[in-house]
Amino acid sequence: MIMKRAIILSSGGIDSTTCIAYAKNQGYTCLSLSFDYGQRHRSELDAAKKVAAYFNVEHHIFKIDIDQYRGSALTDTNIDVPTAASYSKTDIPMTYVPARNTIFLSIALGFAEVYKIGHIFIGANAIDYSNYPDCRPEYIQAFQAMANLATKAAIQGEKVVIETPIIDLTKAQIIELGMKNGVDYSMTVSCYQADELGRACHDCHSCAIRKKGFEEAGVSDPTHYVK
Amino acid sequence: MIMKRAIILSSGGIDSTTCIAYAKNQGYTCLSLSFDYGQRHRSELDAAKKVAAYFNVEHHIFKIDIDQYRGSALTDTNIDVPTAASYSKTDIPMTYVPARNTIFLSIALGFAEVYKIGHIFIGANAIDYSNYPDCRPEYIQAFQAMANLATKAAIQGEKVVIETPIIDLTKAQIIELGMKNGVDYSMTVSCYQADELGRACHDCHSCAIRKKGFEEAGVSDPTHYVK
Repeated sequence: MIMKRAIILSSGGIDSTTCIAYAKNQGYTCLSLSFDYGQRHRSELDAAKKVAAYFNVEHHIFKIDIDQYRGSALTDTNIDVPTAASYSKTDIPMTYVPARNTIFLSIALGFAEVYKIGHIFIGANAIDYSNYPDCRPEYIQAFQAMANLATKAAIQGEKVVIETPIIDLTKAQIIELGMKNGVDYSMTVSCYQADELGRACHDCHSCAIRKKGFEEAGVSDPTHYVK
Repeated sequence: MIMKRAIILSSGGIDSTTCIAYAKNQGYTCLSLSFDYGQRHRSELDAAKKVAAYFNVEHHIFKIDIDQYRGSALTDTNIDVPTAASYSKTDIPMTYVPARNTIFLSIALGFAEVYKIGHIFIGANAIDYSNYPDCRPEYIQAFQAMANLATKAAIQGEKVVIETPIIDLTKAQIIELGMKNGVDYSMTVSCYQADELGRACHDCHSCAIRKKGFEEAGVSDPTHYVK
């Protein structure tokens, strides 16, 4: 039997932290799942760990080096492989990780099956990141349809439900939801280039969205900045 | 532009090796992609490497330790985590890796996007492994629908096509197709517990299916057996 338990994908940022607080207050026993996928800074993982401890939920870090895509094993001649140097100049920005949510949700799906967990929360948001295809409601629905056919548990009637409580909210609304559910956002890190203490740069796109969110929510910004 | 290039998921067994031979003869430039996911024996990866060299295709091994699911990080008390010992006694057989094809296809999808590859071949087969949910045509169709929404490339019109040329074939028909396309099956390993030289046990379920396939195809069995 699937009990009211949930995996929450956690990056230590505003969106996933809000999901943890929300799910916990909805009565779920939560497992926070973070990915060590070769991201630039460890502070994201440190923040996710702090958040999990704060909410007293299990935390697991799954290691998967997505950067292997650009690894040196692709050295033969049949395929015209872009070099690491040329890759960074293509139209795919370095902050876009190909198929990231699909890979993360797939791993979470395996996790859910092993531990008989019925819900996966993902802090996907279609408002502030509308150019990320794998944050849109239609993508999530398609993943759900696939997941319903993918596992033994699912075909035996124990489907895993992908939960996206903040998919249609603005950043300000997400912050309001989190505050209502007891989030202390000073623990969270959003910056693409936070330092090892988790202090934000104040300059990147992610910092700008975060700052605007606090302003619009009328909440004083608790972010630790480098400057 | 997406050229006629394909990623072939390769386990070094009959099914995926047949897919490599078939795709190559269909004119695809192939990248063979294997997963080092904590499987018991390295001989599977050795076989995949041999096969790739035989067909002169690029080979990449992607490391992902799926066994982290059962890792020691899950030690806290909020979730009733089965121990490794109890896990092996559940109704999930050890040969079933939860959400495996979903995880592998998702990673291949990321690979395809990075290198602008338009096709992913998977040797899924619904006949001999009909109890694996993620080998059925309806699952593959659902994955395709999800993939069509998942990536930047897809929403820009460069969809990746999931190809399953052997999904409806019997093992004997797969072997016949492979022979027609130049496969030397003595390179391949199917056994769940092959030794380090790739020699098959002759006893496991996978050995039995393989042996029956050669018998029904009327082909002498080239398998290297331990005994």
